[in-house]
Amino acid sequence: MPPRVAFQGETGAFSEAAVLRHFGEAVCLPRPSFAAVFAAVVAGEAEYGVVPIENSQAGSINQTYDLLLAHETTIVGEVTQRIRHCLLGLPGQKLADIATVHSHPQALEQSREFLERLGVEVVPAYDTAGSAKLIREQGLRGVAAVASRRAAEIYGLAVLADGIETNPNNYTKFFIIQLADAAATGERAAPHGWKTSLVFVVKHTPGTLYHALGAMATRGINLAKLESRPLKQTPWEYVFYADFEAHADDPRCHEALDDLRERCIFLKILGSYPKAPPEALADLPGRGADAGGAR
Amino acid sequence: MPPRVAFQGETGAFSEAAVLRHFGEAVCLPRPSFAAVFAAVVAGEAEYGVVPIENSQAGSINQTYDLLLAHETTIVGEVTQRIRHCLLGLPGQKLADIATVHSHPQALEQSREFLERLGVEVVPAYDTAGSAKLIREQGLRGVAAVASRRAAEIYGLAVLADGIETNPNNYTKFFIIQLADAAATGERAAPHGWKTSLVFVVKHTPGTLYHALGAMATRGINLAKLESRPLKQTPWEYVFYADFEAHADDPRCHEALDDLRERCIFLKILGSYPKAPPEALADLPGRGADAGGAR
Repeated sequence: MPPRVAFQGETGAFSEAAVLRHFGEAVCLPRPSFAAVFAAVVAGEAEYGVVPIENSQAGSINQTYDLLLAHETTIVGEVTQRIRHCLLGLPGQKLADIATVHSHPQALEQSREFLERLGVEVVPAYDTAGSAKLIREQGLRGVAAVASRRAAEIYGLAVLADGIETNPNNYTKFFIIQLADAAATGERAAPHGWKTSLVFVVKHTPGTLYHALGAMATRGINLAKLESRPLKQTPWEYVFYADFEAHADDPRCHEALDDLRERCIFLKILGSYPKAPPEALADLPGRGADAGGAR
Repeated sequence: MPPRVAFQGETGAFSEAAVLRHFGEAVCLPRPSFAAVFAAVVAGEAEYGVVPIENSQAGSINQTYDLLLAHETTIVGEVTQRIRHCLLGLPGQKLADIATVHSHPQALEQSREFLERLGVEVVPAYDTAGSAKLIREQGLRGVAAVASRRAAEIYGLAVLADGIETNPNNYTKFFIIQLADAAATGERAAPHGWKTSLVFVVKHTPGTLYHALGAMATRGINLAKLESRPLKQTPWEYVFYADFEAHADDPRCHEALDDLRERCIFLKILGSYPKAPPEALADLPGRGADAGGAR
């Protein structure tokens, strides 16, 4: 039976495409917010949640980091989804008819050069697919949405322009989350190696972050990513989120984590999971077709 | 003569309050975007720009980091502004009359608990003060904006509720930028010490970030902040933004920077500037009045 997987957005959102890319087949459960995705997993409504963690253009999605810290979930996988934006309108509409464009602020920003050339007014909305849905439901003429080709199919809209993003090198990475108790403890395949995500806090004195990172660096464990987030109760103090290229149960990494724990005032392991396959990035311009966008 | 200072937003924005907090007196030049603030400084329309770099609740403002890297500007100061949100409506309107609330998505998110209790529909907009202006210009009844008390005064709106943010520990830090050529090279006062902001790229191999940070850490120079941003042309590779607590011309820091330069494939110093006075944080709950919000 296909797993029940919660994602943020309306049917046709890029997050849903990431769900299908990772699971092949799934019962997709749309939720209005990232927090609602975590809530669905915690409540057992969904076996898995799929949440965006980073976009290759815009950077990290801060709220997801805050939610990972706040919940008893664990990261069990990652998946990369190419973001290819289309301009969608009611069938019969032409580009010249469009005066207003609705979408998520990030999609509008990523398509800014195209939209400026078109000379339209942009209206920020909560969702790409939701904007497409709105145009269909209210029969809005003269209005278009920036959303996926799949959203056009789902909501019966016409694709007025395709690939309108300024930089085609546009990917979003998603984490697959599961309740920590429910996560499989058995052997899993990781043909591209493992990653471990963790969050830690160091004292605000010279060299503490350097010494914390030394726990891994001196053991030859690569730091794939390091991100800081504010400690909300204390302005200008930070928690650090780090991705290391090793499984937490790997003896060398296990030893490093013990070492790191002693150098931190707080440490939480968010999960060890197989790295996304490199073919997820194979459709870079000039390196092949864009297989990812329209799934 | 007061300096000409560009900021993002409409008159009455929190950014404008930060301009006045830092300069005391200034000719405030509203601009529609962060990019337009940088453009005004580069074109010489403004002597200074004031751009938000981080909010104590939401974290770093990614776009500002990208713009700092892309422009020949230098950071010459920092200033901290308390963000205190009010709900503003047309005079005569009561809380119970309000069905819809407009504001910047971040202001809506920061006031979410209050707005949920009120049971209103929220509409994302580009600006807090711009939402207040819209209500005045279009005479919108039943609509309120989340914005500053100062925006209420400027646009002749009533304050329907004050201090509606969920977490009163809400501050935004702004950088003061200037054209690198125009920046004063003489002695400046830094009663609270100096900070230096820089951006660097290390090779994607084990231990490179650790060794880069070692240039500072082994000399006892404190790392105040470390932030990673994606390299837009190469997904999942990063530039790092770091704040160190020293002036770049300090001999110890100068030596550390030479050392760091050898450990990096790219290094740019964004500026050395006096640290913001600690009294900017003196109005924490229970520690005094909220002097910062309405200036």
